[in-house]
Amino acid sequence: MVKVGVLGATGMVGQRFIQLLDNHPDFEIAALAASSRSAGKKYEDATTWYLNEEMPESVKDMNVIETDPAKMDKDVEIVFSSLPADFAAKVEPQYAKDFVVASNASAMRMKKDIPLVIPEVNPQFLDMIDAQQKNNNWDGFIVTNPNCSTIALTLTLKPIYDNFNINRIYVSTMQAISGAGYNGVPSMAILDNLVPYIGGEEEKMESETLHLLGSLDGGEVKPANFSLSASCHRVAVIDGHTEAVFVELDDEADIDKIKKTIADFKGLPQELNLHSAPEHPVLIKEEDNRPQPRMDRNAYGGMAATVGRLRKDQAFDNSFKYVLVGHNTIRGAAGASILNAELINKQIL
Amino acid sequence: MVKVGVLGATGMVGQRFIQLLDNHPDFEIAALAASSRSAGKKYEDATTWYLNEEMPESVKDMNVIETDPAKMDKDVEIVFSSLPADFAAKVEPQYAKDFVVASNASAMRMKKDIPLVIPEVNPQFLDMIDAQQKNNNWDGFIVTNPNCSTIALTLTLKPIYDNFNINRIYVSTMQAISGAGYNGVPSMAILDNLVPYIGGEEEKMESETLHLLGSLDGGEVKPANFSLSASCHRVAVIDGHTEAVFVELDDEADIDKIKKTIADFKGLPQELNLHSAPEHPVLIKEEDNRPQPRMDRNAYGGMAATVGRLRKDQAFDNSFKYVLVGHNTIRGAAGASILNAELINKQIL
Amino acid sequence: MVKVGVLGATGMVGQRFIQLLDNHPDFEIAALAASSRSAGKKYEDATTWYLNEEMPESVKDMNVIETDPAKMDKDVEIVFSSLPADFAAKVEPQYAKDFVVASNASAMRMKKDIPLVIPEVNPQFLDMIDAQQKNNNWDGFIVTNPNCSTIALTLTLKPIYDNFNINRIYVSTMQAISGAGYNGVPSMAILDNLVPYIGGEEEKMESETLHLLGSLDGGEVKPANFSLSASCHRVAVIDGHTEAVFVELDDEADIDKIKKTIADFKGLPQELNLHSAPEHPVLIKEEDNRPQPRMDRNAYGGMAATVGRLRKDQAFDNSFKYVLVGHNTIRGAAGASILNAELINKQIL
Amino acid sequence: MVKVGVLGATGMVGQRFIQLLDNHPDFEIAALAASSRSAGKKYEDATTWYLNEEMPESVKDMNVIETDPAKMDKDVEIVFSSLPADFAAKVEPQYAKDFVVASNASAMRMKKDIPLVIPEVNPQFLDMIDAQQKNNNWDGFIVTNPNCSTIALTLTLKPIYDNFNINRIYVSTMQAISGAGYNGVPSMAILDNLVPYIGGEEEKMESETLHLLGSLDGGEVKPANFSLSASCHRVAVIDGHTEAVFVELDDEADIDKIKKTIADFKGLPQELNLHSAPEHPVLIKEEDNRPQPRMDRNAYGGMAATVGRLRKDQAFDNSFKYVLVGHNTIRGAAGASILNAELINKQIL
Repeated sequence: MVKVGVLGATGMVGQRFIQLLDNHPDFEIAALAASSRSAGKKYEDATTWYLNEEMPESVKDMNVIETDPAKMDKDVEIVFSSLPADFAAKVEPQYAKDFVVASNASAMRMKKDIPLVIPEVNPQFLDMIDAQQKNNNWDGFIVTNPNCSTIALTLTLKPIYDNFNINRIYVSTMQAISGAGYNGVPSMAILDNLVPYIGGEEEKMESETLHLLGSLDGGEVKPANFSLSASCHRVAVIDGHTEAVFVELDDEADIDKIKKTIADFKGLPQELNLHSAPEHPVLIKEEDNRPQPRMDRNAYGGMAATVGRLRKDQAFDNSFKYVLVGHNTIRGAAGASILNAELINKQIL
Repeated sequence: MVKVGVLGATGMVGQRFIQLLDNHPDFEIAALAASSRSAGKKYEDATTWYLNEEMPESVKDMNVIETDPAKMDKDVEIVFSSLPADFAAKVEPQYAKDFVVASNASAMRMKKDIPLVIPEVNPQFLDMIDAQQKNNNWDGFIVTNPNCSTIALTLTLKPIYDNFNINRIYVSTMQAISGAGYNGVPSMAILDNLVPYIGGEEEKMESETLHLLGSLDGGEVKPANFSLSASCHRVAVIDGHTEAVFVELDDEADIDKIKKTIADFKGLPQELNLHSAPEHPVLIKEEDNRPQPRMDRNAYGGMAATVGRLRKDQAFDNSFKYVLVGHNTIRGAAGASILNAELINKQIL
Repeated sequence: MVKVGVLGATGMVGQRFIQLLDNHPDFEIAALAASSRSAGKKYEDATTWYLNEEMPESVKDMNVIETDPAKMDKDVEIVFSSLPADFAAKVEPQYAKDFVVASNASAMRMKKDIPLVIPEVNPQFLDMIDAQQKNNNWDGFIVTNPNCSTIALTLTLKPIYDNFNINRIYVSTMQAISGAGYNGVPSMAILDNLVPYIGGEEEKMESETLHLLGSLDGGEVKPANFSLSASCHRVAVIDGHTEAVFVELDDEADIDKIKKTIADFKGLPQELNLHSAPEHPVLIKEEDNRPQPRMDRNAYGGMAATVGRLRKDQAFDNSFKYVLVGHNTIRGAAGASILNAELINKQIL
Repeated sequence: MVKVGVLGATGMVGQRFIQLLDNHPDFEIAALAASSRSAGKKYEDATTWYLNEEMPESVKDMNVIETDPAKMDKDVEIVFSSLPADFAAKVEPQYAKDFVVASNASAMRMKKDIPLVIPEVNPQFLDMIDAQQKNNNWDGFIVTNPNCSTIALTLTLKPIYDNFNINRIYVSTMQAISGAGYNGVPSMAILDNLVPYIGGEEEKMESETLHLLGSLDGGEVKPANFSLSASCHRVAVIDGHTEAVFVELDDEADIDKIKKTIADFKGLPQELNLHSAPEHPVLIKEEDNRPQPRMDRNAYGGMAATVGRLRKDQAFDNSFKYVLVGHNTIRGAAGASILNAELINKQIL
């Protein structure tokens, strides 16, 4: 068993880490770090537990430690981070001196030498690690996963990108409130309402997606060569981001062929049979009114994206459109970091 | 005072007609028609009133009549219709023999000689009426208004279309539950959820918008010469459709100029000072997180669309994007028919 | 394995039966009956599946049969019913000629010789079965479970009733929308709203609770000798009924003693270790703001009620109050019938 | 015109004050006070406006001042306060040296010499003002209004209390999120959920109601001589508190007589024809499923409570039950203070 730590352990994504790591076959939680306000308390006392699933017994009595690499048990090999971007930028490099940091934070996703990875999409980006360690003189390293709405989108785009020539993409999101953290969206803001703005989200989707589908060229990422425009909105859904996607190809959009390509898609995690890997990264629904976040967010334990309404776009040549749903705090956050760690554990550690 | 009748008077849009016609300076409700189940009852007894506004005193004791032109008082000049499409296709032509029919039904919007009109956008389409009357040998005529999500979109596109060359448009909607009628969306379907499908809606938006922005050429409508693709979704909002719009122009997208063009936009209803005309058909909001349906749907009594987040689209040349909100049962339904009737009353009757 | 059938198999509670019976150690679904509209189709094709959990593979290809005892495979021993009350009153007696009917329908709960049972509360009522079979000349019999809001309440009252003298009870409910069936509550009725009325619910709670806590005297039920008044309301919650309970005892209300009595409470299902029996029928929460339906409805797989805010009532002598949550379609419906069947299977079949 | 100031002007209740005072026939807003963070800014710039109604033009350019009596224009006669309890306890007495303070804060409601008043219920409590001024050597004085859920309840109890002998009352509330302020209830806490706890609310309801229905005896309030127990819960409703009320009388509960008594009830504000006084303080609904917060909260501009389901309580002798809805930020907060001020302006100033 690999000993792991969780940074930001009392927050929403931190709780997901703990829930998903409970009874994990390869990883064992050995350390829970949080702010100094929580440090020194038992996890159970330091935490207002938000998940519908019960808090695992195994963590209730664990002592919360400070977010300080010096306080981290040296037996720990992997540190999962759901720290706020600013703080992550400061402390993740400190942890990387000695630990593998599997980070959900946005701070360093686009940094040189830091792999931004979805295991089904661009596992080869892990090749950056050597340079990262050398350049920084670190024993550990940092691996990041993308933003929640980017992951689900990119999972569905990967088989399309590999088999067709994408010319342009427009995506409009309807995102769940859990993505903003427990106190992020006041109920006064979202009941009988929606909020058509999520700070920084559109920029992340536009840059990260092309980065993930790009290629590694002399240690540098060459982004995919199409363009993507995003409009992001918050709606009254607890978990599960929904995205309406418009795709223009260079050539004819053969709906049956596109569907088959997506349905057949498997990646390295499926090949390696990683613990958290969904049997299929993307499910296809044929019903008119699917996917729906409440019905589809938990597909394969929340680790698969679900695609529906895949149809020809009658308005434009070579075009089609579809709707996708992905679980934002599982596949879109904690589950993404864990899958990255499972791949690293299998191939690198 | 022009005497008017309401068809489908007990339904959701029927109730909006009644609420908006209460204390109207030009129109006086003289007849309320509904299904045979309601006919013969007092309106108050036949109706489960759904609106937050109180049922007007003036209609409570009115006798509901059958949906049959023979039962309609001959003093009535204008008949407002919110009948279901199938039934509308059958009975609206019967009413048109003697009455002006201002219809919110979708049945005949795209039919030859039947004007589909937004008074700020294409009032000149009313010129079809002569041909319609002649061809059918009717004393009355039918005028229709577009689908709820089309109206708000087209109001915002009109000033852009008139002043810039639109190349393509993508629109993704987040539509209110009231658009489906009182029993249209079960609460089990929409709580902590959304439904990414509204039957026929995308087709209506794609065809009606281009029709409305088109030109009248020898009595036939020549649609606008750009393309538009829609993806339509139902969210947990009571009233007010929100739409994310991506626009590509042929030339540079000068955001300031576009904003000014929209903000300055006024049409014939504003010029004629029609009773239901909003001072501005489209409002512009500068706040990052607006428009929101609960905050903006009632702009100018629900008769204006509100545009926000008008911004350059960094992903594509000559492109910009924005978000709009419009009240679906006021400007998008009953209020649209009433504004059509006000224009007809001023210019034709 | 005991072969079982499900009546009303395509409805919301029918789906819960199927989900809970999937992988059941004692029961095997051998027949799915529904209306003639569904009969003859594969279950998967006949059903719009509503649950967040996936439809079990094992039922997808099963042929739906008509709701007619003559069509039921004779190997079936137990028939679970979630039929509407009227129809249940007609056909459940027909099934009882040959089958054990474990019914969630309200039709015959208060009928002479028909046991209304919660296994933790009044398992001795199963003694009525002999008389029922004799009087009707049936080989099978009918056993019923109470209304959803009654079950959770009565589970929490049982230990209090056994250990203290209850004088009076007031209960005010906040009930989930799933209790009304998929189409029962339009979203227009419940968004930014609540409905302070559920037809027949208050009467059921007031009579069934006293009946369940009553004693069997010469084959007749003598209801418990206190009074209970209920006020029932529907709120925007998907699953999980919440109830505010005010209790007046004859003697002093010792909060610690009452809490301990409830926490220690176990019944026959726990003793017999029945498959669906929760380890504790009632959980106690100490946090100020619990129980909450979304957080607590799934306690012990939805089979336990959760009590919180158990506090002295300062306004009245000998009084206390508390709040409870119970899952209305699991412990309050399908799970209740299944637990009844497990008890019958262990003790009678 | 009486010049008035608003303390806490940027908050939710502060915004209601401003909205209700806009175009008021007797009062004119002359000062807006808020925290030092807002002081010095234009009101429009200092405020995130939360109400569906537009911010009145008249306040947009007003300069926000600090919450300091020395900064308040001496022409101001009445100061409306929606300050937090702690801060109110400190600064309201300072304002009372020179100004009339009409306060919605809970800090001093139960204090000796400070009238807690609902004008329809206990206008005679204003007689305490003389003693208050003398004892404190103030030129101004403080008048308070009750907690939001107390006001609606007490309005409905007043005619009952005056005409029947109340023995005991149980009340269970379902309260709107706006009662907790804009950021008070995270959406994660209330979507598909409810929270069965509102800090201090039950205590306020239990004490304030008896206080308001009590009598003034030698300058001291003698509370009403029955008992009341409350259980308070937060539900997913934006505005409008709903309360289920159980009443036991000493004598027979004649439903028709009780209804008539409530329906006929009018108080001093109706007699004096005060601007904000509803024509009837309490409306009676006969429909089974009313009152509902979204449909009934705005009765008489949100200043009336609505009662429905008034029915005999079959479980107990001399008992009846009903459900009420009242607008928590209008009649339950800002409107209550304004009505108090209108009465004071008419009778005292």
